[in-house]
Amino acid sequence: MKHISLLGATGSIGIQTLDVIRLHPEQFSLYSMAFGRNVEKAVPLIQEFKPAVIVVQDEDTKQRLSREIDHSRILTGGEGLIEAASADDVDVVVNAVMGSIGLPATLKAIQARKQIAIANKETLVTAGHLVMAEARKYGVELLPVDSEHSAIFQALNGENRKEIEKLIITASGGSFRDKSRDELKGVTVEDALNHPNWSMGAKITIDSASMMNKGLEVIEAHWLFQVPYEQIHVILHRESVIHSMVEYVDRNVIAQLGTPDMKVPIQYALTYPSRMDLPITKHLNLEEIATLNFEKMDMDRFPCLRMAYEAGRAGGSMPAVLNAANEEAVQMFLEGRISFLEIESYIEEALERHDKIHNPDLSTIISIDEETRKRVRFHLN
Amino acid sequence: MKHISLLGATGSIGIQTLDVIRLHPEQFSLYSMAFGRNVEKAVPLIQEFKPAVIVVQDEDTKQRLSREIDHSRILTGGEGLIEAASADDVDVVVNAVMGSIGLPATLKAIQARKQIAIANKETLVTAGHLVMAEARKYGVELLPVDSEHSAIFQALNGENRKEIEKLIITASGGSFRDKSRDELKGVTVEDALNHPNWSMGAKITIDSASMMNKGLEVIEAHWLFQVPYEQIHVILHRESVIHSMVEYVDRNVIAQLGTPDMKVPIQYALTYPSRMDLPITKHLNLEEIATLNFEKMDMDRFPCLRMAYEAGRAGGSMPAVLNAANEEAVQMFLEGRISFLEIESYIEEALERHDKIHNPDLSTIISIDEETRKRVRFHLN
Repeated sequence: MKHISLLGATGSIGIQTLDVIRLHPEQFSLYSMAFGRNVEKAVPLIQEFKPAVIVVQDEDTKQRLSREIDHSRILTGGEGLIEAASADDVDVVVNAVMGSIGLPATLKAIQARKQIAIANKETLVTAGHLVMAEARKYGVELLPVDSEHSAIFQALNGENRKEIEKLIITASGGSFRDKSRDELKGVTVEDALNHPNWSMGAKITIDSASMMNKGLEVIEAHWLFQVPYEQIHVILHRESVIHSMVEYVDRNVIAQLGTPDMKVPIQYALTYPSRMDLPITKHLNLEEIATLNFEKMDMDRFPCLRMAYEAGRAGGSMPAVLNAANEEAVQMFLEGRISFLEIESYIEEALERHDKIHNPDLSTIISIDEETRKRVRFHLN
Repeated sequence: MKHISLLGATGSIGIQTLDVIRLHPEQFSLYSMAFGRNVEKAVPLIQEFKPAVIVVQDEDTKQRLSREIDHSRILTGGEGLIEAASADDVDVVVNAVMGSIGLPATLKAIQARKQIAIANKETLVTAGHLVMAEARKYGVELLPVDSEHSAIFQALNGENRKEIEKLIITASGGSFRDKSRDELKGVTVEDALNHPNWSMGAKITIDSASMMNKGLEVIEAHWLFQVPYEQIHVILHRESVIHSMVEYVDRNVIAQLGTPDMKVPIQYALTYPSRMDLPITKHLNLEEIATLNFEKMDMDRFPCLRMAYEAGRAGGSMPAVLNAANEEAVQMFLEGRISFLEIESYIEEALERHDKIHNPDLSTIISIDEETRKRVRFHLN
């Protein structure tokens, strides 16, 4: 029996993680569960899964929740996350919180030698150097939940990582893949949220349309698999059937394919190195799909991807700035305050104005994150 | 340094095996080399690779060869093959002879605990039960050289074979894939030898056009990976980019992709479990290929595949009859004695007339092989 700490339980990945836990009551139980403020969504989940520990974002949410359910251990904020993730009873931490709030809890969980299923890109994007150093130090393997990284992780099974020629990350192209730069000027939030292949949260769907999602994945892959940026390629593959590939030095390319269903990589992270039946997910049917298409990625069409490669190569604090500026700009787009194309100009400006700090520690990363968000939101210098 | 015994050196696989050995003189040397009668092709190879032992098909060939080169150890026939493959100095045996002649040598090499790189389908098709039993007994792993089986073998790296849902073998469809049954009536040997993707020997190119090649691969996969026939699927994939796939119980599908170049699986069998650079082979370029297509396999269009599944499921001596009848019928087609569609009717007749023997031993398999060939060639009852 694996005891799971689920950080980000009411988000898209959180809900699907609970779907997987529900399928295998003999194998998994939910020890702790953290969510932000969505009490309404959380209450039936708490009643069903009966976690020993609950974490919410703030005191106000705690009070609202306490009115709905009777529970003896409701914690709050970052300290709560750390306690929920590092408790002795926890075997696996699923880090599916949004944004960089999950970072300190992840580091503490690594130090407590928990298995980490990582669905939170920002953890590795902003602090890959810290997280990987801790993972090495404590002998903890990070298990990716993103479908692309899960594909690469599986394509590396039983292989020697020194024999990698390159990683090939596929990108569906997002909701605007068939639009020109010019046509992007008038797009709405509603247009952007209409992703052709995957059903995901709002932030990641916008990131998918801007290709920043792929950029963050490139940085994440760099850290997770310790592969230099020049060996990480991105290719447009609109059907999202091949989730990513690894080419080896002997020209063999190993790929993972599947239906676009996040429950597949979530379950793999939970069962790794074993595999278990997943009856709620459709088998891949290539005869029905009939055609897979591949196109060259155009960095001019998708400047967010170009900026992510640049920030990744620059290293230090640059990816943290990239990520914070993007989170804030996307939020402003979702609020209807800026246009879709302004997302990228806000990020570009934030990167230009930032003086890179080499090898930033956790508190530096957190203060750069906060600073960048303020700059973007209030147009500060 | 791995010392290689190459059985079938002047055939298509043999020549490409030598290309790979030539690339890595620090890693590989040719200890022994066997070929049939093609002295002209063999002489420069002997001069280049200087094998300690040479095996030819018969005394006549030995005399012709002795006039061309001065060599102290030229052996002949099946006994020669066994000696070449089982010698103490040999580490790896590449079995790339045509037809079932390589079978006894393979069994002896397994008993001598050599690694076996198997490019000869007939060995497993006709005697899979014997070969796999010996391999288990002597703890020898069989390394596939066929691109499809190499793909599956790689997709199984680091995995638990009990978690296989199914094997998905891809088929290009061969030279006649776009012809109807009716259009097949008038096809010539020249038409059949014009394979769209792979450059191979004549026999396998014809087998590819009739889909018998895929049928033999299904039987081979059954033995090699110990997977029941109902879990082995064949899918039409005309580009031959995905060489085969494994679906696991959790819906993840792992595939191997690459350019159609036999040197890739040959080298992998020689370097396994490591990988080495292969500069003479092009990198896969999916952006250039742009589209991969998949279609349902039609068993009525390709009766040879249906017969192979039936013979495989029936087991015992049936696959040996299938294989011998096919070899002989293809030879007769290549000689211009029968039409392309007669290949399948000769095989069907041979299968119908044979009384299945359960669990045949080596000498029974060899006599059934000879009997079937005679029956097919001379229309005996």
